[in-house]
Amino acid sequence: MSRWAPDAALRLESAAVELFEEQGYGPTTVPQIAARAGLTTRTFFRHFADKRDVLFLRDREFPDVVGAALAGLPDALGPGELVERGLAVAVAPLDHWRDSIGRRRALIQTDDRLKERELLKSARLSEAVASALGTRGLTPLDARLLAATAVAVFDAALDEWLDSADGTALADHLTAVWERMRAVRG
Amino acid sequence: MSRWAPDAALRLESAAVELFEEQGYGPTTVPQIAARAGLTTRTFFRHFADKRDVLFLRDREFPDVVGAALAGLPDALGPGELVERGLAVAVAPLDHWRDSIGRRRALIQTDDRLKERELLKSARLSEAVASALGTRGLTPLDARLLAATAVAVFDAALDEWLDSADGTALADHLTAVWERMRAVRG
Repeated sequence: MSRWAPDAALRLESAAVELFEEQGYGPTTVPQIAARAGLTTRTFFRHFADKRDVLFLRDREFPDVVGAALAGLPDALGPGELVERGLAVAVAPLDHWRDSIGRRRALIQTDDRLKERELLKSARLSEAVASALGTRGLTPLDARLLAATAVAVFDAALDEWLDSADGTALADHLTAVWERMRAVRG
Repeated sequence: MSRWAPDAALRLESAAVELFEEQGYGPTTVPQIAARAGLTTRTFFRHFADKRDVLFLRDREFPDVVGAALAGLPDALGPGELVERGLAVAVAPLDHWRDSIGRRRALIQTDDRLKERELLKSARLSEAVASALGTRGLTPLDARLLAATAVAVFDAALDEWLDSADGTALADHLTAVWERMRAVRG
């Protein structure tokens, strides 16, 4: 067993998802996950704070990805357009991961502590968007409101995408949900 | 010590806030809280699931209060107006509790697990608003988006209200924040 394992986190994630699906989230232990991945418990804790954390590996970087997407857009865009385009850029790579994101979501629905952790994920994304908007000159209040709107649209679009089986890209669901968001406010 | 104590939950909440402020959230134990309130640990656990829960006593009923406020408004209102007026009705009694809500918020900021619990509070409020909107005929997606918007406005207005010292009512902060929400979306 190599101590240096650049793909250790991904192997631990796969092993955890398999075990959670086979025997449930509650009964699965960190040593079991590590053993299934062919790694030590100590390696597990180098990559993850706890058993919950392993299901949120891919979410760690997403706020930074969205922040970077926003930072890369032209200054001339209005804040609403900026957020809408930034999210569309950031989600493009997710289409390749639809199956594993869907399995992960199904697991999260089985446990209240995982659902709580999922809320934290949305809060971190909201902070990243608000911070990127702050550097564009929005007031803290405006940045916070627009960021919360963007995260609500993103979360809803992600569910629509996972629930639909017609191969529509996540970015297209995002566009449709932004339109509903504008319509529902009247 | 009376077993029948209708105000036990409120006494436990006061005792907990005092102890958390005096010695910090982490070191404070449930037996200490119960003792300060002149009650038993067993009574504590009849009212609260854990030490965190005691800080969220007043949030338990708020989603129902908002749902009832929405249900009581005329059918003729559009969904946006419905949510805006329903929230304004529901928050009116909170002005009397500004000091204790502020102390509670300050305590929540000191601990990550309390911050997580606070996110759950917002999620429950969002579900209650979405459910009330569903009975008015909105699609689940539209109800979800408008509910998320309402909760973002509520959370921001609550912070503006707690941070301001000029005595402006929470309902007036709500009105101002709804206006910013409309403006920032462009």
